[in-house]
Amino acid sequence: MTRTGAGAVHPIQRTTVMRVIVPLQGVVQGRGGLVLGSVIPCAFFYFLQFYLKRNRRDEPEPEPEPVIQNSASSTNNNSGSSSPTQSELNGLSRSLSRVILSPRSSGAHVSVSGRANCILKGGDSPGLRRVEEDSYDESGNPDGIIELGLAQNKLSLDVIRDWVSQTSVGLSLSGIASYEPPDGLMELKMGVTRLMSEATKNAVTFDPSQLVLTSGAASAIEILSFCLADSGNAFLVPTPCSPGFDVDVKWRNGVEIIHVPCRSSDNFTISVTALDRSFSQAKKRGVRIRGVIISNPSNPMGSLLTRENLYALLDFTREKNIHIISNEIFAGSVHGDDEEAEFVSIAEIADTEEHLDKERVHIVYDISKDLSFPGLRAGAIYSFNENILAASRKLTVFSPVSSPSQHLLISAISKPEFIQTYVKTNRQRLQRIYSEFVKGLKGLGIECTRSNGGLFCWADMRGFISSYSEKGEIELWNKFLNIGKINVTPGSCCHCIEPGWFRFCISNLSEKDVFVVINRIRKVCIRKTQD
Amino acid sequence: MTRTGAGAVHPIQRTTVMRVIVPLQGVVQGRGGLVLGSVIPCAFFYFLQFYLKRNRRDEPEPEPEPVIQNSASSTNNNSGSSSPTQSELNGLSRSLSRVILSPRSSGAHVSVSGRANCILKGGDSPGLRRVEEDSYDESGNPDGIIELGLAQNKLSLDVIRDWVSQTSVGLSLSGIASYEPPDGLMELKMGVTRLMSEATKNAVTFDPSQLVLTSGAASAIEILSFCLADSGNAFLVPTPCSPGFDVDVKWRNGVEIIHVPCRSSDNFTISVTALDRSFSQAKKRGVRIRGVIISNPSNPMGSLLTRENLYALLDFTREKNIHIISNEIFAGSVHGDDEEAEFVSIAEIADTEEHLDKERVHIVYDISKDLSFPGLRAGAIYSFNENILAASRKLTVFSPVSSPSQHLLISAISKPEFIQTYVKTNRQRLQRIYSEFVKGLKGLGIECTRSNGGLFCWADMRGFISSYSEKGEIELWNKFLNIGKINVTPGSCCHCIEPGWFRFCISNLSEKDVFVVINRIRKVCIRKTQD
Repeated sequence: MTRTGAGAVHPIQRTTVMRVIVPLQGVVQGRGGLVLGSVIPCAFFYFLQFYLKRNRRDEPEPEPEPVIQNSASSTNNNSGSSSPTQSELNGLSRSLSRVILSPRSSGAHVSVSGRANCILKGGDSPGLRRVEEDSYDESGNPDGIIELGLAQNKLSLDVIRDWVSQTSVGLSLSGIASYEPPDGLMELKMGVTRLMSEATKNAVTFDPSQLVLTSGAASAIEILSFCLADSGNAFLVPTPCSPGFDVDVKWRNGVEIIHVPCRSSDNFTISVTALDRSFSQAKKRGVRIRGVIISNPSNPMGSLLTRENLYALLDFTREKNIHIISNEIFAGSVHGDDEEAEFVSIAEIADTEEHLDKERVHIVYDISKDLSFPGLRAGAIYSFNENILAASRKLTVFSPVSSPSQHLLISAISKPEFIQTYVKTNRQRLQRIYSEFVKGLKGLGIECTRSNGGLFCWADMRGFISSYSEKGEIELWNKFLNIGKINVTPGSCCHCIEPGWFRFCISNLSEKDVFVVINRIRKVCIRKTQD
Repeated sequence: MTRTGAGAVHPIQRTTVMRVIVPLQGVVQGRGGLVLGSVIPCAFFYFLQFYLKRNRRDEPEPEPEPVIQNSASSTNNNSGSSSPTQSELNGLSRSLSRVILSPRSSGAHVSVSGRANCILKGGDSPGLRRVEEDSYDESGNPDGIIELGLAQNKLSLDVIRDWVSQTSVGLSLSGIASYEPPDGLMELKMGVTRLMSEATKNAVTFDPSQLVLTSGAASAIEILSFCLADSGNAFLVPTPCSPGFDVDVKWRNGVEIIHVPCRSSDNFTISVTALDRSFSQAKKRGVRIRGVIISNPSNPMGSLLTRENLYALLDFTREKNIHIISNEIFAGSVHGDDEEAEFVSIAEIADTEEHLDKERVHIVYDISKDLSFPGLRAGAIYSFNENILAASRKLTVFSPVSSPSQHLLISAISKPEFIQTYVKTNRQRLQRIYSEFVKGLKGLGIECTRSNGGLFCWADMRGFISSYSEKGEIELWNKFLNIGKINVTPGSCCHCIEPGWFRFCISNLSEKDVFVVINRIRKVCIRKTQD
């Protein structure tokens, strides 16, 4: 077959160049162009990769050496035949080795991983840093910054102090000097499930064998989302939500969050219709949704999910065959009036439904939050899914509860009188401080959503921002920090879609502090009105 | 332009079919076939994806709803205009919601993530489980299984017991009831760096500001490898190596390990030439190597890396511009004769080299290992890289050292007499138990490599395996467990390329136990000779 004559009559005999030109002209002329216009760049890209790969092979080939990746099953009888002897390595004198091995100048900087770079950019709290540098103290530093951003509970420290003073926690030698199960001692698990049951007024009996202890709620959520979703998958999260989810779900797991906004006009109630829409939209974009994450009591609003809310959510997750993580870390911090303030755990719904596939239901609990023991670093995963429990147990090797924490907690939880006193006192004080705070804000013309649980007050300051935008919100936040000397959480951190909402962690305050804080807010808000 | 005449003379006017056929025939005829043979399947694949994507778009489009992914910067003034009201959600009665939302039968099982499934399959230790069920006790269960697999040190528990009995560690209310920095209190960091310096006989002064505390060495290695490598990248690890690396590096980070075998004929010395070869081979396969991970003292061999070894390794990592993680968790457990047993930290080499780019050097330390406090769950990252330190500090939120552990450790480390007594006693006992054990094995015709540090004895049992393969090794391991009633670590778990090596954790034993263990080994090994 002659290939020299470019002008030969039969088209099949054209050169390779012709074989490229023909479809290219097809593109220009628009016939079949859509498909081939996609095919050709793709083909060129493939060719380029192929070319680069071939070129890399041109480097001199070193002697073959058995490289074993992830397996030790191979055997090698020629041990020592080609690898250098100890003397060979030791024989490289320091200066000699420098000459042989270091052609590169020392100026070359070694890079860190891309994901470490992402983490470096995020998660900073400038307010928290400022509080650390200049913390309020009534007598020592009365002009310091008051912390209303960090979720901690100092309301009932006196009860804990009493317990501590009466407690001689013997150092358990066996606990300190040997390994205990990283997912928690059964004795502690039994205590924790008892606490969880009490938060539901014993409507639910939690099974300690379904509990995995971790070093806090953050690691519990991280482990759960790792086990439920692969990298690139996503969870639906109704907003406003806990700012911590971004860190816990996304940072290391590479799992995405799709925020589903709730609105003030609906009292920030979760809408299953909105969840359903977000699910469909994500599916269309090729994103696989693995579950929904909710907080109950909600964070930042402090509202409690009703049975109907929970049934609807469970139905939705069952329809879509996805998981649900219910973050119940403030279950024991419900403080509203009895009728309104009924905490219903999702476990109750899962338990009462015979036909429900419970395997999709997972609960996060935090012993530190309800009992104000953040320093003990003890959270928990409660799940109805055996595989999730087994994988989580294995992962607690990275996030175990330390032995002294476990023994301290066992000692605390095993004293019903301490727990009862603490929980009762804590609820009463939360309720009092909440109503004082809300009354104070009302005096300034600031409304809050009705909260029945948790440590926060969610305040509507839309009237006090200079522009209805995140920028306006952050401006006000800056004024709170620099003029009012209070560190609060702007709604944008909670992914609230409406600018101008702020979260105040009121459990950091004494009753006396409330008036100081309200006065500081007044300072900023009056100034705003005068601006 | 007429397109109807398929037989028209000008080739550019051919149909789309022609435009596909022309290159296909080129493939058949072999001219340019290599390239087009690659291009065509690629193009078809692309086309298929395009087709499927288009088809998916044919589903009915729901009403648009603002979905905010990873950003709260958008604002929405139409709050409440289209989302359902609270009554809409609450109005869904339980049975009604079931009808509307649950077309799926309850039989559909929800899946866990692919990576959770991987974790479920790996990391189990059948030996450890057997020990838990039937643990040896001299008087209580003399026929139980003796644990020689788990890396813990019980040699000097009496010293710790004395310290515990004299210590009244006051429960620090502030530590328990509020958040302390998750990466460790400065007081503890100062104590830990002092300990690390003492292990180098003060050849190195470690800077506490370069230290990040974590809940154990496992989380330290996990955090480091996450920050140094992206998913799909790899580390070179000379083998035999610690079995824990598989869990710490690979499980959650998705980072690979490329094992670089060392050989018994070289006394298992690390060969830079072999590392170099593996590096090149990985590069050719398109795998990006981000660093080398070594253990010093080595695990399982217990050998110490010389200055020359370390210089050569650092030179290698500098030449390739990669990182080095030196796992120095047994730095304080060096037990050989003084001359041979000089522990040199990689920090010393990094410090003495003016021209060295230290940013690639990272050390893992474990307070629990050297001081036999595994229950306190306290490890550390020491790094010369500010970015790695900053990212690691942020990640300790998932793996913090608990407050009671921190205060206990501060209390222990601040007592120089306790530390000195402990370290001295521990080294003496390690040395004694090691020589007793080696002598016992020698009596059975079993040789060990020379160990100067750490808790292990690395024994050559190649003569006792039925076949020179991993199968033969596991058979012998099974005999040790079931006949000898000892749980040991087979070399394959340490990715040793030569079958028949076993790791014995001797620090689990009293001197009396040594004879029991040697007798049990004899039972298996004689039986083998008789087989």
